[in-house]
Amino acid sequence: MSGLDNPALNELEDCALIDMPAGRLAFSTDSYVVDPIFFPGGNIGDLAVHGTINDLAMRGARPMALSLGLILEEGLPLADLQKIIDSIALASKKAGVPIVTGDTKVVPHGKGDKIFINTSGVGIVPAGVDLGARQVRAGDTIILSGTMADHGITIMVARNKLAFEGDIRSDTQALHNLTLALSERANGALHAMRDPTRGGVATTLCEIAEMAEVSMILDEAAIPIRPQVQSACELLGLEPLYLANEGKCLVVVAEDFVDDALRIMRQRPEGRDAAIIGRVEDGLAGRVEITTLAGGRRLVTALTGEPLPRIC
Amino acid sequence: MSGLDNPALNELEDCALIDMPAGRLAFSTDSYVVDPIFFPGGNIGDLAVHGTINDLAMRGARPMALSLGLILEEGLPLADLQKIIDSIALASKKAGVPIVTGDTKVVPHGKGDKIFINTSGVGIVPAGVDLGARQVRAGDTIILSGTMADHGITIMVARNKLAFEGDIRSDTQALHNLTLALSERANGALHAMRDPTRGGVATTLCEIAEMAEVSMILDEAAIPIRPQVQSACELLGLEPLYLANEGKCLVVVAEDFVDDALRIMRQRPEGRDAAIIGRVEDGLAGRVEITTLAGGRRLVTALTGEPLPRIC
Repeated sequence: MSGLDNPALNELEDCALIDMPAGRLAFSTDSYVVDPIFFPGGNIGDLAVHGTINDLAMRGARPMALSLGLILEEGLPLADLQKIIDSIALASKKAGVPIVTGDTKVVPHGKGDKIFINTSGVGIVPAGVDLGARQVRAGDTIILSGTMADHGITIMVARNKLAFEGDIRSDTQALHNLTLALSERANGALHAMRDPTRGGVATTLCEIAEMAEVSMILDEAAIPIRPQVQSACELLGLEPLYLANEGKCLVVVAEDFVDDALRIMRQRPEGRDAAIIGRVEDGLAGRVEITTLAGGRRLVTALTGEPLPRIC
Repeated sequence: MSGLDNPALNELEDCALIDMPAGRLAFSTDSYVVDPIFFPGGNIGDLAVHGTINDLAMRGARPMALSLGLILEEGLPLADLQKIIDSIALASKKAGVPIVTGDTKVVPHGKGDKIFINTSGVGIVPAGVDLGARQVRAGDTIILSGTMADHGITIMVARNKLAFEGDIRSDTQALHNLTLALSERANGALHAMRDPTRGGVATTLCEIAEMAEVSMILDEAAIPIRPQVQSACELLGLEPLYLANEGKCLVVVAEDFVDDALRIMRQRPEGRDAAIIGRVEDGLAGRVEITTLAGGRRLVTALTGEPLPRIC
């Protein structure tokens, strides 16, 4: 496929071979069925590259290689396919993570929906790095790397061809350089990272709180959100806490690392708007509460099912 | 997902972590869109497990872990999904290759076709093992691990609801135990392995001949095929050399390893019918000829495009 050249892919054998440094292997997969396939800020192609890179990054892995599986519906305009492949190639190049193996299948018109993409990824977790919800404990601080709900509201607006004032665009971007910068300097004080995709910040934090058997208290006023996204959510009656993000991460750190973590994140463009949004407390396992703008407190529950299907 | 339990999957983090022995990493991906999803001898689930294991196996890798990406069409009966998941779990268990990470997406009715599956896989290639078409040279012998065309004819018959005498069923099976037994004892005399899936034995050998810049001469009478498959092909006017296999491999070895290779393969059920089917010669790069049953010689060309869409 044009634009994707690299030595491992160019061998054209049944699988790719990759020289790997020592460490544990991180392995992740995601299928992308986003509708529409083109949206402000990106398309299904770069979304698929960033999404799988981010899944590896959240466990402290250095992403090493991606696979690319395409399922094309007959009738997809070749120009659209080329545009998507170009975005994949550019995203892969910018991230420094090559696509080393791939596969393409074609299904008849009416048996698919333009294009579905699977990307899987491998990465290496350096010795000593052990991140995950189970490391989270009372007293930890919760940081969000930037504004919430950008991707979810963008898809909602694009799908329904709504018109809003202001620039509404997906935040799709790779986060591994930010997460690696954090984990390299954390000395065990970085406990968990998660990208709040489907189900948004609220659902992701509920999941962490449940697995870690802790409570959390969030501060609504502290959660970064673009004014135009906030307005669109209000007009559409959507709760931004539940909308998907594709270029943000939640970072849970020990108190003594909070200042360093914020500084490291804000030094990078993808973490420029990083902010403390809450803290971890002893309490009922899985209970997440939020102090609202009005000064009250309410319970935040996990979303079951999909609020907005085909968001990624 | 029920039946797929293992420690790496059960962590439910964004990606799986796998302890890996030293060696080069093999990485492969395939999407499965086979129609129909259930067929004699298997279904889309075990096909997806075996197919990716085999792609890793063909380069001499020991498969270590698989990912599983499901794209479900709304309306797929839950009983069908459970049957497929059960087959995936059984195939993974039998092969000793766990599914460590997964993802499920749902698309509306009419935007997919029951179920599409992506499996990606990682494996380790031991130091010293270096297999690939470019290792193939004049004087090598070409072995096929068993009967050809079983999968392709099965899908053809199932899709068109044809009735034939005799047992016609897919050969879907994992080949890594056979390929590892070969590569462990080959001492450099094993040059290339390929599973002749889409395009069959003919297209796969043409690809190897082209990459290796050699000629090949095949012996039609020596190529194993079940009588009922041969009859069905004749009735339908199909050339079995071009039909897909999902549990067979082509093995190209140096002359001094031929007897050992045949013995090793025939000791295993998946290689019971292994046979020498041709040899590699100096000559026009990519030229493959076959001595026909009638005693003549004809040129074998690679299939361009897909003879039978959605075979896997």
